[in-house]
Amino acid sequence: MAQSIAPIRYTDNVLWLLDQRLLPAETSWLRCDDAATVALAIRDMVVRGAPAIGIAAAYGIALEAKRVQAAVPAAAWQDALRPALQQLAESRPTAVNLFRAIDRAQAVIDRGGDVASMLEALALSIHRDDVAANHRMGELGAAQLGTDVVVYTHCNTGALATGGYGTALGVVRAAWAAGRLRHVYAGETRPWLQGSRLTAWELMAEGIPFDLCVEGAAGSLFARGGIDWVIVGADRVAANGDVANKIGTYNLAVLARYHGAKFMAVMPTSTVDLSIATGSDIQIEVRDAAEVLCCGGRRVAPPECSAVNPAFDITPAGLIDVIVTERGVVERPDRRKMAALLD
Amino acid sequence: MAQSIAPIRYTDNVLWLLDQRLLPAETSWLRCDDAATVALAIRDMVVRGAPAIGIAAAYGIALEAKRVQAAVPAAAWQDALRPALQQLAESRPTAVNLFRAIDRAQAVIDRGGDVASMLEALALSIHRDDVAANHRMGELGAAQLGTDVVVYTHCNTGALATGGYGTALGVVRAAWAAGRLRHVYAGETRPWLQGSRLTAWELMAEGIPFDLCVEGAAGSLFARGGIDWVIVGADRVAANGDVANKIGTYNLAVLARYHGAKFMAVMPTSTVDLSIATGSDIQIEVRDAAEVLCCGGRRVAPPECSAVNPAFDITPAGLIDVIVTERGVVERPDRRKMAALLD
Repeated sequence: MAQSIAPIRYTDNVLWLLDQRLLPAETSWLRCDDAATVALAIRDMVVRGAPAIGIAAAYGIALEAKRVQAAVPAAAWQDALRPALQQLAESRPTAVNLFRAIDRAQAVIDRGGDVASMLEALALSIHRDDVAANHRMGELGAAQLGTDVVVYTHCNTGALATGGYGTALGVVRAAWAAGRLRHVYAGETRPWLQGSRLTAWELMAEGIPFDLCVEGAAGSLFARGGIDWVIVGADRVAANGDVANKIGTYNLAVLARYHGAKFMAVMPTSTVDLSIATGSDIQIEVRDAAEVLCCGGRRVAPPECSAVNPAFDITPAGLIDVIVTERGVVERPDRRKMAALLD
Repeated sequence: MAQSIAPIRYTDNVLWLLDQRLLPAETSWLRCDDAATVALAIRDMVVRGAPAIGIAAAYGIALEAKRVQAAVPAAAWQDALRPALQQLAESRPTAVNLFRAIDRAQAVIDRGGDVASMLEALALSIHRDDVAANHRMGELGAAQLGTDVVVYTHCNTGALATGGYGTALGVVRAAWAAGRLRHVYAGETRPWLQGSRLTAWELMAEGIPFDLCVEGAAGSLFARGGIDWVIVGADRVAANGDVANKIGTYNLAVLARYHGAKFMAVMPTSTVDLSIATGSDIQIEVRDAAEVLCCGGRRVAPPECSAVNPAFDITPAGLIDVIVTERGVVERPDRRKMAALLD
């Protein structure tokens, strides 16, 4: 398999983020030398996807530590790093991978020593582990699918959303490589169109047969018996297996159940948050109404029109047939099974 | 109530169509002097909405008859009109109001006499009857709703989709006027964004409280218990009560049923096609993939990306709680009840 697209590159003490807002029309890289630039890149969706956000944040903290190291006496280090950690923590609320990366960095800082080097090593290991986890999830997920399957996927969960390869789209890649896949339908995923812009781009690069569709078309695809599996990623998973993922995921879970199709959610265990009991406790980011009022960069709704714009929704565990993580597969997830997986 | 927006104007032997592709940014009227211009306007969605298409076609035939009358000997009239009727019939396949208007015009032509005047009278009466039917449906539909209701609507079914006032949006207007309505959610309705561009425009003009949303957000609105009724229009209704309507309608019907919300479809009886046994026999228009690959007039998907673009879907009668027509209301529609309504 060809090396998949890598949206996050770290070389010579510089982090480069592929600007995913401009894809596929334009390939542009944002240079990041400090945590503030990374935090803005996360907030503004230069980089998106729960695992990718966590990785970018880890690199951002490492860069900040090097910057601070050069400027501040050793005794003042920890205090000097705090605002950067805070700014990263406030960049986006829902994906837990971000907070997990920050927590791990904080533990390194608290231990002291050559913190900058250790933070860099942490970032590199989070990145490397994510890619390895994705390949493992790809294998495990593809093995669940049966043969000659038609998959519906949502948003972008591929190399662009992760350290590389992808979560749900990693399963799609692995299924394709294993000859199990007939066709993919990719929902365009308004308002950000990650399906049209990013998933389509990745699937075309791999030569995987697919069609884009508007999200309104999903029901009619199910109704004609055309979908075997819905496969999606996750931004945060509660202890009971409820999944927060891109807005529109829950619609697909209801449609899948209604039509007897299977529903799979794929995420590294770094996305599971045992401190959150159920999905209703997950903070759902509400983004600017302008994202709904505009389309393709153009204002479409009338002036002063109002809109609701939740960025994520909650799919209850009861609608999920399989959760796939790098540690294994959980069928019909619940609190007990999730705890056993993570034990 | 203020006079609602009129997208179809006929004065001094000229038909003017409000170009709905440019709304709300621009208010531009297309002048039509013959049937060919009207047929292209229907095909290219200058005018859209099943009742509005039927009305426009009727005017188009009347204009064509006047034009032909001035140019062709009386004996050659019928033959000279035939290509125009054919071109209108081929403009769009799903909305039955178009074919009903053509059939009624054909009957006038077959009877002979002062055909041009009678075709004009026919068009004016189809137009006037549609507005009257909409007001009646508004009353009947609003009476079904209860009080303090929250409604989710899809696409545009308002004054712009009809002769005036609207079908589903007519019910929303009537419910608002009667003090029964708390809030409306309007799905943006990709790919043409009739919700963002047209429904939002109409609701703002009436001062009805609403929020736009992407279609992916519908499920989460239902899940938090926020939606009492889904109210939609129809492009063709089969004899058993199955409803063809804008792509995405079926998703909403499944979500409504799953969450215990009610589903209402509103259409004049001219939209019911007793010659079609069930929804599976209704021809679903498949439009150009470019409509999905572009968004807000801009290409968003990669070059050579493929997409499916069905313009309509079928909601089976079993998911419909109430059908509202100008002749009355049918609860839990089936073949027998639909036949009784139309008898």
